[in-house]
Amino acid sequence: MVDTEAFIEEAVAEIEAEVGDAHAIIALSGGVDSSVAATLAYEALGENLTPVYVDTGLMRKGETAQIRETFAFMDSLEVVEAQERFLDALSGVTDPEEKRHVIGEQFIREFETIAKESDADYLVQGTIYPDRIESEGNIKSHHNVGGLPDVVDFEGIVEPVRDLYKDEVRDVARALGLEEIISERMPFPGPGLAVRIIGEVTEEKLEVAREACHVVEDEVEDHEPWQAFAAVIGKATGVKGDNRVHGWVVSVRSVESRDGMTARAQELPWDTLQRIQSRITGTLPNVARVVYDVTHKPPATIEYE
Amino acid sequence: MVDTEAFIEEAVAEIEAEVGDAHAIIALSGGVDSSVAATLAYEALGENLTPVYVDTGLMRKGETAQIRETFAFMDSLEVVEAQERFLDALSGVTDPEEKRHVIGEQFIREFETIAKESDADYLVQGTIYPDRIESEGNIKSHHNVGGLPDVVDFEGIVEPVRDLYKDEVRDVARALGLEEIISERMPFPGPGLAVRIIGEVTEEKLEVAREACHVVEDEVEDHEPWQAFAAVIGKATGVKGDNRVHGWVVSVRSVESRDGMTARAQELPWDTLQRIQSRITGTLPNVARVVYDVTHKPPATIEYE
Repeated sequence: MVDTEAFIEEAVAEIEAEVGDAHAIIALSGGVDSSVAATLAYEALGENLTPVYVDTGLMRKGETAQIRETFAFMDSLEVVEAQERFLDALSGVTDPEEKRHVIGEQFIREFETIAKESDADYLVQGTIYPDRIESEGNIKSHHNVGGLPDVVDFEGIVEPVRDLYKDEVRDVARALGLEEIISERMPFPGPGLAVRIIGEVTEEKLEVAREACHVVEDEVEDHEPWQAFAAVIGKATGVKGDNRVHGWVVSVRSVESRDGMTARAQELPWDTLQRIQSRITGTLPNVARVVYDVTHKPPATIEYE
Repeated sequence: MVDTEAFIEEAVAEIEAEVGDAHAIIALSGGVDSSVAATLAYEALGENLTPVYVDTGLMRKGETAQIRETFAFMDSLEVVEAQERFLDALSGVTDPEEKRHVIGEQFIREFETIAKESDADYLVQGTIYPDRIESEGNIKSHHNVGGLPDVVDFEGIVEPVRDLYKDEVRDVARALGLEEIISERMPFPGPGLAVRIIGEVTEEKLEVAREACHVVEDEVEDHEPWQAFAAVIGKATGVKGDNRVHGWVVSVRSVESRDGMTARAQELPWDTLQRIQSRITGTLPNVARVVYDVTHKPPATIEYE
């Protein structure tokens, strides 16, 4: 475990030394990694850092409002309202790899616009150690925005948390005084709810995924999973009154892990699973079934696409 | 609860009185209902009954061999090898209603051939009380072969177990001396594994559904569910070595019920669920995930399509 106070001091000094009086930019996802990287960079560079948050419409319930509130102290924060552009770009796309690609491309386009406006010479990224390992094996292509350095001609890339594991990043977040909602925040994938939807991303499926994720996070909080969420994985029959209907199948996932590289499905109490299924089918009448994922990683991944 | 001995005596007498010296036919599915109906009818009519078992290729592991063995005492048993014809008819069919329709049609065609050859005047059916109730609400259209009486011009339909609930049929099965594998057999839908496969029925998915169902039945036996099985519900990502792969998602269902009209998802021990997922992903390398269905009926149905 690193000495967090010493780490923060060194990281800030390193960013200052590397960027100097130049301008830098960072894509803020709301996750703990990019939040810590942004806070360290802001401490080093102040208003010479432009933090950019792109609202893709694939975010969790209340996420954008939360970001605006948490990072209100950064006057240079840019929030890009891109929900409609992402949904349009995703329309008709069903192949998982193509979905990721479309989202990555659209993200780069949105980010590029701000990067050019802000005249940034440096890119700050919240890459952590497991990201670097996994991206070598192509397991998480586009989970993080790996394409950014290629499209904008930056003078340098700064990755202040590149050698940390997730739990160390959380230590640093706490030491930096970031609120619990950030420091204890579960990992959330770059393409957002899109990888929690099998097949085409539509407004109806997004609404189901967003509400169901909210229920799951709420109900499993006390069990302190590494990551917990819901995914929309298909349709199956249900029954309403005397008639057969077709409704969405929602899969609930809650895993324990140290670093996300391997993970174990979490044993949840039966009454917790029952509360989850009853809240989800009660709130969302177009959901016919709730299932619980009992598979570890490997052979499954944590996310669904 | 009915007096089973008295019931059997009356049922046999009733069939004798109705059919007399004429010829009757029955579609034997391997389930407890049609097995009991066939045994009662065989007792009444002997070789004047033609029991027909159609192997649709959508059956459980080892089912056809089991049927041949159990009903070997009926010399008039006809086993129709129709696996290829069913798979051909189902090729490219993805809509759930159309799948049921195609299977129902093909079944009628196979049955009709034998019915005409055997010159049967009477049709014996294993309809039980809940079937009659549910078919009124169209919940289980084609789960049982409701179309049969319409296509062949029978003089009469005989339904010896029409007023019984499932547990009463099992009592009668035991009293008739049918083996445990029949009397305690879980309900199995008319369209077979096809309703445990979301989307098109292919040989690969059938193989997954058949093997996974076998594992589930084996592992949950001691928990005495009303019905337990596995369904192939879609694809999602998994990880093999350092690479991301796509594999099948298998949903495990185990429910408690008195009559199938309503049902409760069964609380299974975590180590049972873990053994199931590990056996399924171990035996079938093209399966990436195993999930457990925690939804009751309603709002879900027991089967998936």
